[in-house]
Amino acid sequence: MLLETINSPADVKNLPVSDLPALCAEIRNYMIACCSKNPGHLGASLGAVELCVALHYVYDSPTDKFLWDVGHQAYAHKIITGRRDQFQDNRKKGGISGFPKREESIHDAFGAGHSSTSISAALGMAVAAEKQGRKEHVVAVIGDGAMGGGMAFEGLNHAGSLKTDLLVILNDNQISIDKNTGALHNYLVKISLSRTYNRLKEGVWRRMGSGIRNHVKRIFRSTKMAVIQGGTLFESLGFRYFGAIDGNDVLQLVNALERLKTLDGPKLLHIITQKGKGYEPAEKNQVVWHAPGAFDPETGERLAKKGDADRYQDVFGETLLELARTDKRIVGITPAMLSGSSLNIMQREMPDRVFDVGIAEQHAVTFSAGLAANGLLPFCNIYSSFMQRAYDSVIHDVALQKIKVIFCLDRAGLVGEDGATHQGAYDLAAFRPIPNLTILAPMDETELKQMMYAVCGPEYGPTILRYPRGTGRGTDWRTAPIAPITLGKSRCLEPSNHTDTVILSLGTAGNWVTDALKTLQENHKENLPAHYDMRFLKPIDTDLLEEVAQKYSHIITVEDGCDQGGLHGAVCEYLAGTDFNGKITALGIPDRFIEQGTVNQQREECNLNKESILRTIQAAVVEKKVKEN
Amino acid sequence: MLLETINSPADVKNLPVSDLPALCAEIRNYMIACCSKNPGHLGASLGAVELCVALHYVYDSPTDKFLWDVGHQAYAHKIITGRRDQFQDNRKKGGISGFPKREESIHDAFGAGHSSTSISAALGMAVAAEKQGRKEHVVAVIGDGAMGGGMAFEGLNHAGSLKTDLLVILNDNQISIDKNTGALHNYLVKISLSRTYNRLKEGVWRRMGSGIRNHVKRIFRSTKMAVIQGGTLFESLGFRYFGAIDGNDVLQLVNALERLKTLDGPKLLHIITQKGKGYEPAEKNQVVWHAPGAFDPETGERLAKKGDADRYQDVFGETLLELARTDKRIVGITPAMLSGSSLNIMQREMPDRVFDVGIAEQHAVTFSAGLAANGLLPFCNIYSSFMQRAYDSVIHDVALQKIKVIFCLDRAGLVGEDGATHQGAYDLAAFRPIPNLTILAPMDETELKQMMYAVCGPEYGPTILRYPRGTGRGTDWRTAPIAPITLGKSRCLEPSNHTDTVILSLGTAGNWVTDALKTLQENHKENLPAHYDMRFLKPIDTDLLEEVAQKYSHIITVEDGCDQGGLHGAVCEYLAGTDFNGKITALGIPDRFIEQGTVNQQREECNLNKESILRTIQAAVVEKKVKEN
Repeated sequence: MLLETINSPADVKNLPVSDLPALCAEIRNYMIACCSKNPGHLGASLGAVELCVALHYVYDSPTDKFLWDVGHQAYAHKIITGRRDQFQDNRKKGGISGFPKREESIHDAFGAGHSSTSISAALGMAVAAEKQGRKEHVVAVIGDGAMGGGMAFEGLNHAGSLKTDLLVILNDNQISIDKNTGALHNYLVKISLSRTYNRLKEGVWRRMGSGIRNHVKRIFRSTKMAVIQGGTLFESLGFRYFGAIDGNDVLQLVNALERLKTLDGPKLLHIITQKGKGYEPAEKNQVVWHAPGAFDPETGERLAKKGDADRYQDVFGETLLELARTDKRIVGITPAMLSGSSLNIMQREMPDRVFDVGIAEQHAVTFSAGLAANGLLPFCNIYSSFMQRAYDSVIHDVALQKIKVIFCLDRAGLVGEDGATHQGAYDLAAFRPIPNLTILAPMDETELKQMMYAVCGPEYGPTILRYPRGTGRGTDWRTAPIAPITLGKSRCLEPSNHTDTVILSLGTAGNWVTDALKTLQENHKENLPAHYDMRFLKPIDTDLLEEVAQKYSHIITVEDGCDQGGLHGAVCEYLAGTDFNGKITALGIPDRFIEQGTVNQQREECNLNKESILRTIQAAVVEKKVKEN
Repeated sequence: MLLETINSPADVKNLPVSDLPALCAEIRNYMIACCSKNPGHLGASLGAVELCVALHYVYDSPTDKFLWDVGHQAYAHKIITGRRDQFQDNRKKGGISGFPKREESIHDAFGAGHSSTSISAALGMAVAAEKQGRKEHVVAVIGDGAMGGGMAFEGLNHAGSLKTDLLVILNDNQISIDKNTGALHNYLVKISLSRTYNRLKEGVWRRMGSGIRNHVKRIFRSTKMAVIQGGTLFESLGFRYFGAIDGNDVLQLVNALERLKTLDGPKLLHIITQKGKGYEPAEKNQVVWHAPGAFDPETGERLAKKGDADRYQDVFGETLLELARTDKRIVGITPAMLSGSSLNIMQREMPDRVFDVGIAEQHAVTFSAGLAANGLLPFCNIYSSFMQRAYDSVIHDVALQKIKVIFCLDRAGLVGEDGATHQGAYDLAAFRPIPNLTILAPMDETELKQMMYAVCGPEYGPTILRYPRGTGRGTDWRTAPIAPITLGKSRCLEPSNHTDTVILSLGTAGNWVTDALKTLQENHKENLPAHYDMRFLKPIDTDLLEEVAQKYSHIITVEDGCDQGGLHGAVCEYLAGTDFNGKITALGIPDRFIEQGTVNQQREECNLNKESILRTIQAAVVEKKVKEN
């Protein structure tokens, strides 16, 4: 077994090149074995095994630097850079991150969990090396989906105007999580199909000096690569284009990289890989096997733990379809999360009213604004942490112009195994100060459905509706009546007057509170505080705040977002201007990035689990008793 | 005079086409006359006069829709759509906005003050019209600088994959505010120079059906336009490329547009215009005449009101150069605001250590992160409102990885005449909850310089240093000693114990307070509250907060940012967990977008002027007396 001997990139480099295919096969099997028990982003990483091995074989990490865009293609990189055994604890609390992470290894040159950042960061690293007189090779590996993100273009545009040595590898598997879309995708398909080996495009050829020409001739002769006509998109942006070559052929990759290494300036190598490569079930259904969960490695059967409850995303998907059947204005927009948002439910019935715009959050928001400004009612679904990328678009193109777009923020709050890069922690705090927005959050599936109905009403303008990742509470949301949701009004869940403590919660965090209160209800009723579900962060229910300020002396706010600037901030700010003299305690995500783990582990870490909430309540109630004495 | 008769687009359409050149000349003269007295963005709008006139001549606004990217090229559009006389009050409080604004006119299809949004919004409007069965022409007009923004690429990428009718006009004047940079710029220069009339590129030609081919032949014959080899960048993205033609020739434009109007699908017309066209001083110095201030229209002499004080941006520029002379790690980064940020001061002496990355805020941030991750110390200067666009980049690429980039946010707070799109109102609230960041703000020029020195120290990680637009307080910042700035510590400006009221301010807002207190000092010393300059929003000086909580019962927070989530939020949140029983009053930008006007008018509107601050203090002090009785 080769893999057992690989404890660092040096061990890869010491192998005869002829061993590399066998090493790739072993890595692939190991990856499948690990991921079958401990789920991860298998599909993309299976496709990039040969690339990871070839890069480490040809270059010298950490002097040379590899930047893995989005990051979940880099499992083989992790495995051969000293984290083979730790890979079994991939994405677990205390284990390694599912994404490259600078703190984790000197071989992780730059962290990434969001898309389209690699070219910019790589260019920065390359320029820094150059300015400091160090010879380092910097390689950005970016998927064809990520290449459609605007930031990648910004990076290309800058890099292509400099002479700095930079290699961009376009890892083209022609799929993101769902089937890729967009003109760039169409273009890449075309140039991949029309690749003509051993021919150089005239224009590029002429531009090179004769010394370079001879050098390039040698490269092409030995690698069978070609600069082809289609590469003009990248050539227009100042890159030399090479490809497309088979990115799952490790020997061809090594050959190509060894020669590209000797060529200065900005260059792009286009490789074609297969997502799920080498594992038949994953090759056949690439969407499902992007992140398949646990499975039987022999049969490929997915060991889906069918939860008791439906997922929030499916409530979104089915409800939107239901609404769209009667309201012709409704359209659905997603930036490359067709299945992740369950917008594919509507798409199947109404393909012409659903738009997957690719990895392009800013465009998704402003395109939605355009749709709305001209008569439609767009529901734009974006994961909370990706919405950070469209912050300006929401402010400048939607809120400022009071254009009615409904933003449905999936994966709000703690997200579990994806860890720090993906936490939906900042949406509440970031959007609360933005004028003209309404911000609300449901506690369960039924309320999500009701809220989606409600926000169609004329009293709602631009709106942010946020809900968590995963399954709901198991409510009968399909048959429950569509109760009205009054704009800006909270609801009372526990009117207890046993204590002078009251809990104000927002969205799913309310369930954590009711679970905790159940325990008190049964055992320590004398400690049972009142509990309100705020429903709206904006406009916040000031009538309720006035009322609780009169009746209670200790307020505990509980939210599935950062504990600064969100619900806690709203309550503190409002009551600071009143005669309220009590205390306000915050339960929320603390002021640090929360790493990977299960959602329950993360809740515990944030003092948002049942026990912590109970402790906070006990402390508040005891404190009061002490004061009274 | 033709212009006097133009009260709506219909009046333009009623003119014989031969009158259009004369109309353009009149508009240009009127624009120069108005802007000489009432300053505005003259340069870009001078270059786009013919385009505005031609669009309204050929199309039917508001049925057809024009989306002006960035918006400050649209003065002629405003003048011929019923706002001729109002244009004299351009950018004034109560007057018209300097940017397109939906609330202002049915002819302003979409608001814009930030760059690169037009294609996305236009595509949304075009798709909406199509879905609703309405025939509307939608035209996005975007500059070559704005085309380099990632969002424009996202829009092209989506539009080029649809069959929706959309015309993108690339208004190429080869300059943003400063000289354009980037590979796209180089490319556009090349294709403009190599344009070959009356030739069609083979590939495009073959792809068209024969009906279309004949139609296109007629177009080219009559307009002398051509699809040229270079256009392949846009063709790669699914657009049909036409151009480049002279965009300051109104008759040629009309001819081209009339024929393009009959052609379906996504198409791009490349026009070459001259920034400052038709006014010699503006043609000669395009950077200065982007927004020249008041001037003598006869001589072109700029009537610069040389203020008593230096501008903050110049303090930044000179200090950075000074620091960079001794610290070789320091580099400067700007997204297309070389002169606007005064980074050109450093650039003149150290051109190889300054990077103008073009209009690309996300790239600017992540490129800076890459530079820092590989050994340099980047000062990345971005206007506060444009930083909204890089929110995710700061979180994901900088803060999460604790990479030391110093962000200098110019134009923070109220910005005056640019109005709602440009207010730097949300930076404090948006960035406060982000872990690992330090956020600080100076009160004057000297402190800005001192802070720039301080943040180079090892105790500082990723940092946001924000300061306002315009001139400082006239301090002797060049000669003043570099006093240390202690991380996280406030300073006392007025230790008064006359009242139980204390004012906590951040940054420039502290000056508004000291000005107000001067009045009290002289006349009503008994009402004089204490005053602290917080200096840091994050980490906030909790020692001070504990102390004031003990000593005072009324806290007034004053900040040049939104009154939710920023300083007020930080103080309220912290004290809500203590025994503080007093009140906290917020002075800041209220929860609505603040329109154009002078900064002083905007301060008044936000209750941040001297009189309002005095009123708030009086109310606090009186209130206390009432309570005591």
